[in-house]
Formats: sequence, C-alpha cells, structure tokens
Amino acid sequence: MGAGDLTAGLVAVGTRATAHVVCRSTAVLCGGPWFDACFRRLDPDAVVEWMVDEGSAIAPGQKLCSVHGAARALLTAERTALNFLQMLSAVATATRRYVAAVAGTKAKIVDTRKTLPGLRIAQKYAVRAGGGVNHRMGLFDAILIKENHLAAAGGVGAAMRDAERISPPGVWIQIEVENFAQLRDALAAGAKMILLDNMSLEQMREAVGIAAGRAGLEASGGITLENVRAIAQTGVDRISIGGLTKDITAVDLSMRFD
Amino acid sequence: MGAGDLTAGLVAVGTRATAHVVCRSTAVLCGGPWFDACFRRLDPDAVVEWMVDEGSAIAPGQKLCSVHGAARALLTAERTALNFLQMLSAVATATRRYVAAVAGTKAKIVDTRKTLPGLRIAQKYAVRAGGGVNHRMGLFDAILIKENHLAAAGGVGAAMRDAERISPPGVWIQIEVENFAQLRDALAAGAKMILLDNMSLEQMREAVGIAAGRAGLEASGGITLENVRAIAQTGVDRISIGGLTKDITAVDLSMRFD
Amino acid sequence: MGAGDLTAGLVAVGTRATAHVVCRSTAVLCGGPWFDACFRRLDPDAVVEWMVDEGSAIAPGQKLCSVHGAARALLTAERTALNFLQMLSAVATATRRYVAAVAGTKAKIVDTRKTLPGLRIAQKYAVRAGGGVNHRMGLFDAILIKENHLAAAGGVGAAMRDAERISPPGVWIQIEVENFAQLRDALAAGAKMILLDNMSLEQMREAVGIAAGRAGLEASGGITLENVRAIAQTGVDRISIGGLTKDITAVDLSMRFD
Amino acid sequence: MGAGDLTAGLVAVGTRATAHVVCRSTAVLCGGPWFDACFRRLDPDAVVEWMVDEGSAIAPGQKLCSVHGAARALLTAERTALNFLQMLSAVATATRRYVAAVAGTKAKIVDTRKTLPGLRIAQKYAVRAGGGVNHRMGLFDAILIKENHLAAAGGVGAAMRDAERISPPGVWIQIEVENFAQLRDALAAGAKMILLDNMSLEQMREAVGIAAGRAGLEASGGITLENVRAIAQTGVDRISIGGLTKDITAVDLSMRFD
Amino acid sequence: MGAGDLTAGLVAVGTRATAHVVCRSTAVLCGGPWFDACFRRLDPDAVVEWMVDEGSAIAPGQKLCSVHGAARALLTAERTALNFLQMLSAVATATRRYVAAVAGTKAKIVDTRKTLPGLRIAQKYAVRAGGGVNHRMGLFDAILIKENHLAAAGGVGAAMRDAERISPPGVWIQIEVENFAQLRDALAAGAKMILLDNMSLEQMREAVGIAAGRAGLEASGGITLENVRAIAQTGVDRISIGGLTKDITAVDLSMRFD
Amino acid sequence: MGAGDLTAGLVAVGTRATAHVVCRSTAVLCGGPWFDACFRRLDPDAVVEWMVDEGSAIAPGQKLCSVHGAARALLTAERTALNFLQMLSAVATATRRYVAAVAGTKAKIVDTRKTLPGLRIAQKYAVRAGGGVNHRMGLFDAILIKENHLAAAGGVGAAMRDAERISPPGVWIQIEVENFAQLRDALAAGAKMILLDNMSLEQMREAVGIAAGRAGLEASGGITLENVRAIAQTGVDRISIGGLTKDITAVDLSMRFD
Repeated sequence: MGAGDLTAGLVAVGTRATAHVVCRSTAVLCGGPWFDACFRRLDPDAVVEWMVDEGSAIAPGQKLCSVHGAARALLTAERTALNFLQMLSAVATATRRYVAAVAGTKAKIVDTRKTLPGLRIAQKYAVRAGGGVNHRMGLFDAILIKENHLAAAGGVGAAMRDAERISPPGVWIQIEVENFAQLRDALAAGAKMILLDNMSLEQMREAVGIAAGRAGLEASGGITLENVRAIAQTGVDRISIGGLTKDITAVDLSMRFD
Repeated sequence: MGAGDLTAGLVAVGTRATAHVVCRSTAVLCGGPWFDACFRRLDPDAVVEWMVDEGSAIAPGQKLCSVHGAARALLTAERTALNFLQMLSAVATATRRYVAAVAGTKAKIVDTRKTLPGLRIAQKYAVRAGGGVNHRMGLFDAILIKENHLAAAGGVGAAMRDAERISPPGVWIQIEVENFAQLRDALAAGAKMILLDNMSLEQMREAVGIAAGRAGLEASGGITLENVRAIAQTGVDRISIGGLTKDITAVDLSMRFD
Repeated sequence: MGAGDLTAGLVAVGTRATAHVVCRSTAVLCGGPWFDACFRRLDPDAVVEWMVDEGSAIAPGQKLCSVHGAARALLTAERTALNFLQMLSAVATATRRYVAAVAGTKAKIVDTRKTLPGLRIAQKYAVRAGGGVNHRMGLFDAILIKENHLAAAGGVGAAMRDAERISPPGVWIQIEVENFAQLRDALAAGAKMILLDNMSLEQMREAVGIAAGRAGLEASGGITLENVRAIAQTGVDRISIGGLTKDITAVDLSMRFD
Repeated sequence: MGAGDLTAGLVAVGTRATAHVVCRSTAVLCGGPWFDACFRRLDPDAVVEWMVDEGSAIAPGQKLCSVHGAARALLTAERTALNFLQMLSAVATATRRYVAAVAGTKAKIVDTRKTLPGLRIAQKYAVRAGGGVNHRMGLFDAILIKENHLAAAGGVGAAMRDAERISPPGVWIQIEVENFAQLRDALAAGAKMILLDNMSLEQMREAVGIAAGRAGLEASGGITLENVRAIAQTGVDRISIGGLTKDITAVDLSMRFD
Repeated sequence: MGAGDLTAGLVAVGTRATAHVVCRSTAVLCGGPWFDACFRRLDPDAVVEWMVDEGSAIAPGQKLCSVHGAARALLTAERTALNFLQMLSAVATATRRYVAAVAGTKAKIVDTRKTLPGLRIAQKYAVRAGGGVNHRMGLFDAILIKENHLAAAGGVGAAMRDAERISPPGVWIQIEVENFAQLRDALAAGAKMILLDNMSLEQMREAVGIAAGRAGLEASGGITLENVRAIAQTGVDRISIGGLTKDITAVDLSMRFD
Repeated sequence: MGAGDLTAGLVAVGTRATAHVVCRSTAVLCGGPWFDACFRRLDPDAVVEWMVDEGSAIAPGQKLCSVHGAARALLTAERTALNFLQMLSAVATATRRYVAAVAGTKAKIVDTRKTLPGLRIAQKYAVRAGGGVNHRMGLFDAILIKENHLAAAGGVGAAMRDAERISPPGVWIQIEVENFAQLRDALAAGAKMILLDNMSLEQMREAVGIAAGRAGLEASGGITLENVRAIAQTGVDRISIGGLTKDITAVDLSMRFD
C-alpha cells in the first residue's frame, strides 16, 4: 500500500482531478513510461497527455504533460511518479551532455555497473534516451575479465580461454588491460572488446595504433565533461562513465493541480 | 541471481580472498549494514572489519574496511555493495554539511519524500547518520495537508477536522501554509507542526513571531548551503531539504583485492 | 492471483454490487486503509463509505461502512479485507484497554517486536490507533542492548560504548537492566532509555527513585490488565506489552451483500 | 535486511553461540520447519536440535530445542523465529483442544479462510499438526457457493450448474444452505459437500437424517469448545471453526543464550 | 511494469478495443482464470467472455473467448495472457490423453514435482483440469522417503519411524521401494502409499498381489502413452508421470483484434 | 521456504553428501549458473564441479557434474535445480538444431516473446547458448509495430513517425508487414528491421530483392526444422521461432547420491 494513503483520504471519494507537470530547469525529458505506470497502477483510467517527446530537450517553465484521473490516485501516486521522472531525466540529461561533447568523433558514450541499487534497468533506458549506449553486463550476457582474474588465471591468454569454457556461445567477453603488453596478449588471444583502464591520452593513442582495428577499445576511469572530447579524439571506440548513473542532479519538476 | 555470476565463474571453487575498500574523497561514511549484508547474503561466513565508525568523517586514501570470504562471493557482491555505500555516504555527507551550516541554532535539518524510488528507508537512515532528522510521513504515521486539500476542504480549520476524522490517535498532522492568514487559522485549529512553503526570510521571521511557540514551524523550498544558516536564524524549528535525498554525488570508493 | 478467483466466476461479468460491514462485538475500529486497499486493488472505482471514524469505539450491531463496486471484485477481496480489519481492530482494542487502565498516570503503553510475521508495520499502526506508542526498533533506528550483550561486552559501560561505535548519530540506544547495579552503571554511562526487565513493583519504585529523571524507564515482562495500573503508579515512563501484537482476539465482523 | 542488523553488530565477528528455547505454557509444539529456516537463512551451518517431536504436547519449563551457530545470525533471527513458533504452536494448540473435544465422534475439525493475512499456508499446516483437517479452498481447487450466489443464479440447482461450467474436472464444489428446502435441492443437484450455516443442534440432526449419507455435511458458525461436542454428536461430518486461525493466544516461549 | 509498455504507447489514450482468441489445434482448454487476471490487472473493467468451458475439448478454428477493454491494456497483456493459456492448455491436453488411455481401469494419473520453475501451482491446476490427480508434496503436507533416505536411516522400518517423528499429524508419508523385500518391509511398517520405482509390468502385478490392498501402490518411471494402459491393468492405484508438467507442446492460439 | 523442507528433515544435521548428475539423452547442456545458484542459496559452501562446458553437446550416460555439500541442502535444492537444468537445456538443444539446419546461410535464428511465464531472461540466455540471437523486446528497448497499429495510425509511414515520437533515442523500431506495398512503405519510411509475417518462400525471395539491403528482413510464422533451411536460402537476415521457448521437451537428467 502506498505511503500516501492516509493523506489521500482527505479527498472525497469519486472526485476527479487534473494536474500538470512543469519543468523548472534545462534538461532532457526521460521516464514517461514509469511516470504513466505510477498513475495507472492506482487508476487504470488515468490519462497522461505528454506535450513533449520522450528524450527531447525541455526548458524552465515548460509544461510537460497533464494528468487526469481519480483525485485520490493522483495524490497517492504523485510523489513516486515525480521521483522517477526527476531521476531518469537527470540521467538522460547528463548523458546528453557527454554525447554532445564528443559529437563528430566515432566514440560512443557507455554506461557502467555503477548504478543506484534496484534501478539498473530504468537507468540504462535513460542512458539510451540521452544518446548513450548500454554496456551489456547484467543479464547473463557478458563477462568482464579484470585485473584480479588475470592474476588468478596466470595471464591474458589463459583468462580468455577460461572465460570461453564457462560461458556458452552468445556471451560477450570483454577484457581490461593496464599496459601495452597485456593489450598485445589480448589481441593475440582474439579479444573483440578491450577496456583501457586509466590510461593517459598518449597511451590511448598508442593503444589505438597497436590495436589497428583488430578489436574495439573502451576508455574508462576519470572521465569528465572537460576531458571527454580529447579522449574521444584519441580514436577509442567507446568511453564508459560511472557518473552517468551514480551521480544524480534531480531535474526540478513540479506537479500542480488545476 | 546476481548479475556477476558468469564472471565469478572465472575463479576456482573454494578460493578465499581478502579485499579492502579505500576512500578517494572527503565524506561521511554511511551504509555499513547494507554493505555487510551484500556479502553475507552470498557467504554467511564473510567477515567485514571496519576501521572507521559508521557516521564518521573519512578522507582520501583512508582504508575503510577489509572483507574476507569466498572469492566468488566477493566478486559477485562487490559492485552492489559499493553502489549502496557510495550512495548512502553521499546522503550522509550532504546532510552533515547542512547540519554544520546551522550549528548553534535550534533548527533541525529534515528530509522529505523526494527520494530515490525503492530506497527510502535506507536514505532516511543516512540522513540520520549525517545528523539530520526524519520527516515521519511514509508508514501510515503522518498526514500532510497541502494547498489543494485546503481548497477542497474549504479552509484550514475544515481541513484539520477532516484529517482528524480519517486518522486515528497517533497519526501526526502537519499543515502547509502560504501566508499569515492561513498560519493564524492553522494555529487556531490547534496545528502542532506547520510547514512554511517558499516564504522569504522576513516572512519566516514574522511567522515565528506569530506562532510564538504555539506550534513548530518548518521552512521548505529553495534551501541551499548558502541560505540555510540565515533561514535557521529566523527561529524556525525545522528546515526540510529535498536535495538531501534526490541529488546524489556518489562518494568515490574503490575495492581492491589483496 | 487471489484465492477467490474461481468462486467470483459465478457472478455475471459487469454486475455491480453493494455490501456493508456490521460489527458484532464491542471494540475499537482499526484498519480502514488496508480494508479500502483490498477492494481498490481489484476495482479502482470501488467506493468504501465509512460511518465510523478510524480509531473510534464500535458496538454490536453497528454498521461500519458500505462498499460499492464490481461484484466480482467485492467477492474476491471480501475475505482478505475482513481478515485485515478483524486483526487490526483486535490490536487497537487491546491497546485501548491498557491505555484506559493507566489513565491519569504518566506511563505510555508501548509495543514490542513480538508481532505476527510479515504484519509488523500494520500492527504498529493499530497500536497507535489504540492510543499506544511505538517502540522504534525495526528500521535501522534503534539498538537494544540485552543481557547477553552485556556479558559479551564486559559490562554496561563497555556495551554502551560499543553501541555508539557501530551506530551513527540518530540511532536510539536502549539498554536492558536486571538489577540496581546495572541501572546505576547505565545511568552513569549516559543511557537515555533503560528497560527494567521483570522487576517487582517495589523494585520499579526504587528504580524510579534512583534514576531521578536522568533517563526514561520502561517496565517490561509479565504485564496484564490487572497489574498494569499498579505498575504505572510506580512512576515508570513506559510499559511495553508483547500481548498487544502477539495475542489476537479477532473482532467479530460480517459483510453482507444488499 | 533483517530488523536486528544494528544490534547484531554488538557481537564480535566470528563468535559462535548456543541458545535453547524453553516453553512456559501447556501447548502443542508446531512450527519447527519455519523456526529452523529463520536461522538457516542467515547461517546455513546453524544447527537446531529438537528435543520434542513436531505436533506433540509440551509443558512449562520444558526445553524444546537448542540452536548452535554464528552469534550474529542467532541474534538477528531470534525474534522472527520465535514469532513463527509462538503463533503456529498457538494454532496447533487450539486445534488440538477442539479435536479432543469431539474424540469418539466421526466429526472432523476443519479450518476456514479466516486467517492472518499472508500466513495462510503456515496456519493450515498448524491446523493439521493439531489434528484438524484443511478446508481446500485457496489454490484454485475449490468453489464455495454461498447465499448471494444462490440469489444471483436463481436457485441451488442453477448455481451448481454454473459452478460446473466455470470449473474444470478436479475442482471441488461445496454449497452453503440455510434451510431444508435448499438442502434437498443441493442433494438433488448432486452436491458432494454441503455447509450448514448457523443451524441449531436440532436442525443439524434433521439435516443429517435428510442427507442420509448422500453428501457430506459441515457445521459452521458459532462453534465453541463448549458446544462442539454436542454438534459433533448430531452426526455431521465436519465442523469448521474460524477461531482456529483468527484468534491467537501466543504460546509463551523464551530463548536463552548459554 | 510490463514489457509492452513502449508499444502500447502507439495507441491513443482512451481507445477501447475488442479482440478474440482462436484455437488452431486440437486440445483441452485450460487457464481461463490466469488469462482473465492478466487483462484485469491492467484494466479492471476488462471483460472476457468465454464461449468454451474450462477443461473442455477445443478444435482448430474454434473461437474460445472475446476480450473487451482499454486498447492499451489489451496490447500490453496479450502476450503474457496467451503464454499462460497455451502452456496450461498443453498440460491439460497431455493429461487428458493419459487419462483417456487408462479409462476403465482404477488407476489415477498423478503429477510429480518435475515442473517448470515458478509455475507449480498453475500446472497442478491444469493436471486436474485434464482429469489427473495432484501429488500432494509441496506445501508442507507430505514426505516422500526415497532410496537415499533408506540407506541413511538403515532400512524401511527405521525410515518410516523417522518420518513420523519429524512430521506432525496430517502429513502424508509416502515411501519408494525398488524390490519386494522393501515392499514387504513398508507394508509391515504400516505405509499407506508405496511408490514402485521403475518396475516391470510383471513386477508390478506381483507387487499388487503382495500388497493385497493393505496400501496404495503408485507406478513411476518410464511411463509413455504406449505403455500406460498395460501398467494400469496391473492393478496399481496411481501412475505418476513427470512428462505431464516438464514437457510442453504449447497449444497454438492467436488473438485477433476486431 | 523450500517445498522439500519436511523430507530434508530425514537426514541427520551436519551430514555432508556428494551427488552427480547424469545425462540420459542427446542434448546441449545449458543452465549451469541457475543449477549452481539453487544449491548455493541453501549452502554457500556447496561446490558444483562441471565436467562439461556450458553450451556443449552431451550424450546419454555422460556425467555432467558432481555436487558436494550439506546433505539437507542437496536434498532440498535437487528438484528445483534439475527443473531449471532440464528446461534450459531443452531450449538450447532446440535452438542448436535450428542453427545447424541453416548453417552456411547468413540467416540468424531469433527468439520471440512466446516464452514461459516468469522465465523469459533465463530462456533468452538458453537461446544464445544454443547459438541463437535474442530479439530485444522486453526491457524498454524496442517497439514492434504490428498490423493493428498500422490500421490505427493510418498506414506504415504514420506508424513509424508515431513510434519515433513516443520513444527516445536508443529504442529499436521494428515493423511487421504482410505485403509488398507495406514493405515498400516501410523502406521509404526508413525502417531498419522489417518482419515478414507468414509469407511464402517465393514472397520472401521477392521481398529480399525489393529491400536490396536497405533494411534487415526477418521471417516469422510457421517455421519448422523441415522448412527452415529453405527459408534461410531466400536471403532473409533473421528467422524468428516461437517454438524455441514455448515448446519444451525436457532433457532427461538424473541426480544420484554417491
């Protein structure tokens, strides 16, 4: 039962209401399906009319949507619906800024597993809404071989073979390297996607030269809006950024009853 | 089943491991019980040794805890455990800054219902860890009468009576007012806690004078680290801040295997 | 899917119905929000009209509410809705009797963690509805130091210090004592709430004298409607009673279709 | 995460403990599998040794079982484990008293759907442990035709045909009758189990004569320990009692650490 | 939130629709309550009108039901509703074929615990709809003593006594035997239902002679539509078949919008 | 709590056991991570040693793995673990047969949304293990425009525009066509993936010519092992088959205790 039940009891049974959501900051709208679902779970006849497309830019003062339905359902669902919308729009907005910063390069902006507990699927959708690309790990579809696996397995080649043994066809194997020797081993072992961990711009450029298109390269660690374009210009294929999903500046929204 | 199962398969069965968590920013530590639970759900014999007390200040380079247990359990739980710790420490850190800013005044820093979906109870704990106070609404224990209820009920007095009728003894009734007329009506109706919505500093001071201790007053809306002290000095009893729980700057942490 | 699905199939699709709930014993009504939610989950347009305020006294033959909605929804939800109402009213009724028994003293009636599995939040609400006060433990907001912790820690003072170390600001520390030596140690260690476990009336009176207002005292163990007033008159601040939530005499209710 | 996490933090990691459960009233023991599961969910190596068979009589002072395991797991699970055991033993104890009261007659003691929310399956097990029989309704396996269905369908025969149409082979159809005319209609329509609602002893005896073994008869409504034997002696086959599962007098148990 | 949310967004808000389900193979219809529930969870006013009784034979081209409701709800629920209906009808159809094959004998067709994960209760209902009988194990209501328990306990008699000790009255004890010596021991120990594991037709006949009605006998292992009648004719009471619930040939159904 | 708790009680506390799983049919092994998780949830120290790689071919009599752990945990988890393994191996086996049948063509074998309720993610993994490709719909990542959307929107071009409006960047739009006019409209509207619904081999070949590589083409409906190669040879890019996940012939496995 929703947290607002007692308060909703203040409104007479059978009352219907209309409300609208207004934006109070510059952002990218994201989360419409979750917002809608909050209201429709309590009132299946609730109608949300969106004036703005999912994934498009919004500005202060802009009316985003109107909601019509049972007044009690609107009151009970309001806070949770806005909590989803302000958080997912925040993720899409941050992603859009990074995507804009690398415009014109071939680099894709990619999310990570540094997400809010319980909200991974929704946050991945918001990353796509902002123009980013999803890292696949999470649904039994990928293995990421990291430093400690390399040590345990006894080297890059052995670790790649172990990963192939425990995973069936269709699982995507990614390997993290910290220096050029590991990079060359990974390429020799047939890796298709290689993650460059905390390399300098110069090292990334050299890694791109070494790989020479034989595998995709992903830059990771210490990415900011300030340095992301320079990183993209090194020629890497993907840039993964934990901040897309772990740092949240909620988009400022308010819902007003008419 | 955890998202990391396939990767954990890279480590030989029966291997045990030790890892430690290092802080990389200045913050308040929070979330130990959630961090511990992530590991113990997969390995009940996992041991987490904390070098730092829950709720205390931490600094870059500081070792926070060490974790010993089955290597597969550590690998599978690592990401989720850190996701909890970095988010809850972020909430405690933000709260601590507001609490420090009002030190010496009688104002309490209070959270709101603007939380991350599904994480309300954990975030409320983190607000307390930072020195804040929890708003009670959420477990059938409070009613907040807002602007639209006032309109529907036909005034402050009528709304207070409605709230008393639908709620049993033990439920806490709070009422939001926008001007002094409503404030006086709320006081006359016997309100015990009154929320001042988006009032200026001057208005708040006047409200404190009008209330004259007959009810608690809570400032709400537009609070920042810059203006919070001035608001506290108006004499209000509580200051509620949505940003404590909706804006997150994840505390930077890393877990390293020994 | 609800247990009554097959039976509900006996009613023609589209049929609407009205029913009302009648009380058949002397009790305190509690559980309206849960009762309403059972019906509204199956028919969001279902309307429950209450003739009696939540938390008020009810008598045999009294009509409590009427329910209007889809006949199938009413049939499917009826049993679960009544199961909540009869159980929560039972808790509120028992609490009210204890509260009445201590009227005029300063003692508060408090619940415990001896609840029905899965129903703790609802039962705590019912205790408040009956005029009782909730013990806070349960949501990461309190620590209760008991006999076995004292032994492990090596005394009251050490145990209090351990509790402070593992819990952040905002967690409420309560300590259980069995004799005056422990009571004095707890007072010296700065305890704010002390639980007197199974003390005689005389011992409680002496404990009140020793504490002299430096900490709250809570009587616990062996409380009955017969002895509760005498206990309250010893001057303790709180009396906690497991029977409020573990012993249930369901309030007799029936729902009749018009 | 369990409610006791903070308190469990008081015990040093790696500490093992032994505790035992002692009974403090005369009762029937029930709930061992739930009690065990509470501990094993937190410590899979926890060992519960029972000195008493599930379903047997227990007495004040009797030691019921001992529990060995990680001290933190024991502290965290203790309250929930006891809450299950005291409630399920209460159900088995009440059932055993009714079963004893009808000993020597052919009547079976049967439960109803008046259960504690969320605890139906566990309570049904406890009814069997006390010697009772489960009413089957609840898992898509039975239809109970009640008064209001009779009115809607236009009589007993029509209602029986409707029930057969919407339910496949294998679903058990039971019909509730209030007078002899309905009883005769139900018998004529081939009913296999007929529920006599609130009939007097004399009416039940006459109903037994009318049915003459063509269908099972179940007495229902107003059953007490005082009148249950007389009801059984009318010759009915089953006696269903809501109080078995909706009224709970928790069996008094305590767990002590060695 | 349902998987089809994005697609449902293609239909204008407020649009209502009608669809019907057509069968495309020869089968037994089963799963109506689950099918209905999928739609009513999203639109409580959705109406499903069935032209065919639950549990009856259906043929290619036959119209099974029509569905009226909110177009968005119909689109979102369609796939899940059909997934239930095609799977449960498959189970009922397979069961019906085995039941038909043993018609005229006293043998009952019984399901096993070899079910689809998470779908046991629904599949058991479908077995009954096909004319089969449910094995009871699964809700704390039965113990099945198998080969390895016999070895651990030190023989059939000892294992039967152990089972009686750990289970209260009302739990059903079944024992699996592999030869006549074990069968005789089980009969001597008072077993009420004995499972004959992978015996030949001749062995089963001899087992029926040995048991001579003192216990029920259940054939198990290697049952096919070809040999099931011969097995039934040996005189066993029950034949349990894992294939009823683990092998699924989905009944071919389609839903068309009018 | 697991269904086998009562039976597991037959084994003495503290007993450890070893068991192994043997295959009894020709198949592709799939489901190791789920199998492992069933045991480790009950005994985190349980060890499963696999002799066969996930996704590889297995034969009758072959030993697949051995399991070591607490005997009670092994008994309780056995049935659920095998239920996962036999079902997922069935899906991988069926997929592998289709993949083999189209070997040498460019066509990919793709799953659909016709899955077992609640088991979609696991079944998609098994399709990949068999060499198939996952249809993406299901996690807010794709829209499939079908016949009824075309009618509602007023044509292919309008439907494509609607889909773009309601979905943000990163959502994959697929459109189903039934004739060449619709196919040409879809190509003109910029569709990237077009589903050919129930077309003849000749029609598919012509569709491939019309598309001329401007969009991917997916064949769907009526696919069997007999016709799948001919369909692949028409030049379509993907072939989607509901039977991969809705028809299950459980792989025959048994677990034997050593």
